[in-house]
Amino acid sequence: MIDIPASLPRRHLLASSASALAAIGMATWTRSATAQAPAARPLPASASWKNPASVIVHSSTTVETKRSAFGTSIITPADQLYLRNNLPAPDASIVADRDAWKITLQGVQRPRKLTVRDLRSMGLETVAMVLQCSGNGRGFFPSKPSGTPWTVGAAGCVVWSGVPVRAVVEALGGLSPGMRFMTGTGGEKLPEGIDPKTIMVERSVPASAMGDALLAWEMNGEPVSLAHGGPLRLIVPGYTGVNSIKYIKQLAFTAQESDANIMSHGYRITPPGGKGDPSQPSVQEMTVKSWVNSPHPESGPLREGWMQIHGVAFGGLQAVKGVEVSIDGGKNWQKARLVGPDLGKYAWRQFVLPAHFSPGSYLVTSRATDMAGNVQPEQRVENQSGYNNTSWADHAVKVTVA
Amino acid sequence: MIDIPASLPRRHLLASSASALAAIGMATWTRSATAQAPAARPLPASASWKNPASVIVHSSTTVETKRSAFGTSIITPADQLYLRNNLPAPDASIVADRDAWKITLQGVQRPRKLTVRDLRSMGLETVAMVLQCSGNGRGFFPSKPSGTPWTVGAAGCVVWSGVPVRAVVEALGGLSPGMRFMTGTGGEKLPEGIDPKTIMVERSVPASAMGDALLAWEMNGEPVSLAHGGPLRLIVPGYTGVNSIKYIKQLAFTAQESDANIMSHGYRITPPGGKGDPSQPSVQEMTVKSWVNSPHPESGPLREGWMQIHGVAFGGLQAVKGVEVSIDGGKNWQKARLVGPDLGKYAWRQFVLPAHFSPGSYLVTSRATDMAGNVQPEQRVENQSGYNNTSWADHAVKVTVA
Repeated sequence: MIDIPASLPRRHLLASSASALAAIGMATWTRSATAQAPAARPLPASASWKNPASVIVHSSTTVETKRSAFGTSIITPADQLYLRNNLPAPDASIVADRDAWKITLQGVQRPRKLTVRDLRSMGLETVAMVLQCSGNGRGFFPSKPSGTPWTVGAAGCVVWSGVPVRAVVEALGGLSPGMRFMTGTGGEKLPEGIDPKTIMVERSVPASAMGDALLAWEMNGEPVSLAHGGPLRLIVPGYTGVNSIKYIKQLAFTAQESDANIMSHGYRITPPGGKGDPSQPSVQEMTVKSWVNSPHPESGPLREGWMQIHGVAFGGLQAVKGVEVSIDGGKNWQKARLVGPDLGKYAWRQFVLPAHFSPGSYLVTSRATDMAGNVQPEQRVENQSGYNNTSWADHAVKVTVA
Repeated sequence: MIDIPASLPRRHLLASSASALAAIGMATWTRSATAQAPAARPLPASASWKNPASVIVHSSTTVETKRSAFGTSIITPADQLYLRNNLPAPDASIVADRDAWKITLQGVQRPRKLTVRDLRSMGLETVAMVLQCSGNGRGFFPSKPSGTPWTVGAAGCVVWSGVPVRAVVEALGGLSPGMRFMTGTGGEKLPEGIDPKTIMVERSVPASAMGDALLAWEMNGEPVSLAHGGPLRLIVPGYTGVNSIKYIKQLAFTAQESDANIMSHGYRITPPGGKGDPSQPSVQEMTVKSWVNSPHPESGPLREGWMQIHGVAFGGLQAVKGVEVSIDGGKNWQKARLVGPDLGKYAWRQFVLPAHFSPGSYLVTSRATDMAGNVQPEQRVENQSGYNNTSWADHAVKVTVA
């Protein structure tokens, strides 16, 4: 059972940890429902280095990449990558001596505490992957679920470097018997006077996910920034962002899933109108998805002529096989071309289709297929919190050509 | 013949365009021979956004990435990428309306002027490639050639997006007969009172290089910055950086190489003590090269134990087949592992070799082999200007383990 202090309404805890923090007076701020001028909202202190022209600041813990800012160079630069912190970022002092950061390893034959310096000696791997918030696409749900109304920009394709989790586990003698989950705990500072389980960031994924997981100290060629989880972040390729634990202070192989609220009740596929509970599917593996980034009304007026329709496509745990594009809202489809380097199955691919546009209105969208033959669906799966929206209909862009 | 005003000593023009500019009073500054505190030198205005902790500022037109700043995530972030401009960057007004930038196409069946907006409609491709200054490694020449004493940091692996040159040529009816070179001309503002040919940035490469060349408007996911040649840069993968013309204002297919000084006399493999002339080999295609980035004395004190030796390797026009590492200055070699995504033949690969270090001194280096079987040489090829240094002996790092 989750122990909730009487002074804190349970719905706050279940709705979002940011609300819970607000209720106990920790400094966060959120977008006013009536706010109309995104440019006026300041970037969070930990992410003050982001490019304000490329992002939409929703709150002090949520920043989205503008759809028109996504380029065609596959890797999303750090200064335009989305930000979504479940709790405020820890004090910047934790990145002052990165190599001294400690992580406790549990559920292995020889549990121990390791520093980043230790980890650096144990192995090195690099992976390119889509980092995507579980709620990316929530903004397209007509039900307007609570939470940040992301459209497409709570996602990016980034490169991580660190030690493979499997190398660390091997060095510590392998898993203890019966351990079925890999459970990561974040190093955020928790407020006093509240049961940590109600607010801490702790997530479990199947232990098999350690196969390609990293304990990463580098993102896109630079030490992982505080905003993105430095000095050390657990990276679980193919899983939604919440499973890649920032400021990771403990990695435990466990017999059961974590009973922290964020795992047991949060991030569940809850029927509309319902409340999250452990019997519902957890939001973990990503599935096949794509969207068009250009043309887009944000990019300015469109003129008659040829355009290179382009966007991104990814498969979650599998590579993308192909992408089709429609300019009439899904009545007719044409095969797009995948272009640029292939950075591996966890990365997104960039697709391009040249098309001639006469004056008129168009509904432009894309539909990806993964290597297992799964096709991106037309419709979203309705759920209370607006998770896992992969609907190609929702991601369609209406453009007018003069 | 090159026409040089009587007031300008010829040696200035041949030594470097920066010196020539200084001679006629254009604002540039260079590192004083006695300067000892790199941190005190300011970043050039056009590159003020670079990370000062990751770079060495040599002059107002030359900035080098620190060897210890190279990460292991393959792509070099823009804020630590080297900078080398042959002339001062144009005024920032040229990136105010990027789509309006014009380029003249010549030596094709239907020569014409095109805007970036036109180019965007004509095609889209993305390429990852090593961008490397011809003089990278010059600092290892005992002869101390004039020019920036780069060690390894006048190189990076970056991603470019733009229209394939071949798509533009096809759209303009193909090449005119007899055109053997692709000649790009930069859009830098040239000083009055001096023959443009003596100072302009104009380079020719074989017309066949257009096969993978781009006219690029995006680098690493963002519009190409002014410092790196925006709004439009010619990208010639596999060739040294000087051939990828910034602010390109003309792309001409020509029967002869350009007679601009930078082509006819500059960037030539000139015998030691000699002067550049058109009979000498031009610095164009890159060849197989690698170096170790870690361990490195800059990274701090090294302790006994396991280390992951890592670095980068590339083949120029060919992919890398493999890399060997030596910790005893080349007496013994061990095969390293290529790790991380493979971004194509023009990109560099990251290599890793775990090694146990007892207390002592080590001379750590690497030797790459390309797909054609070319092996990175032990010795540099001596030349007057210190170009094309691929010597694995020169790139060795001496480290001491306590």
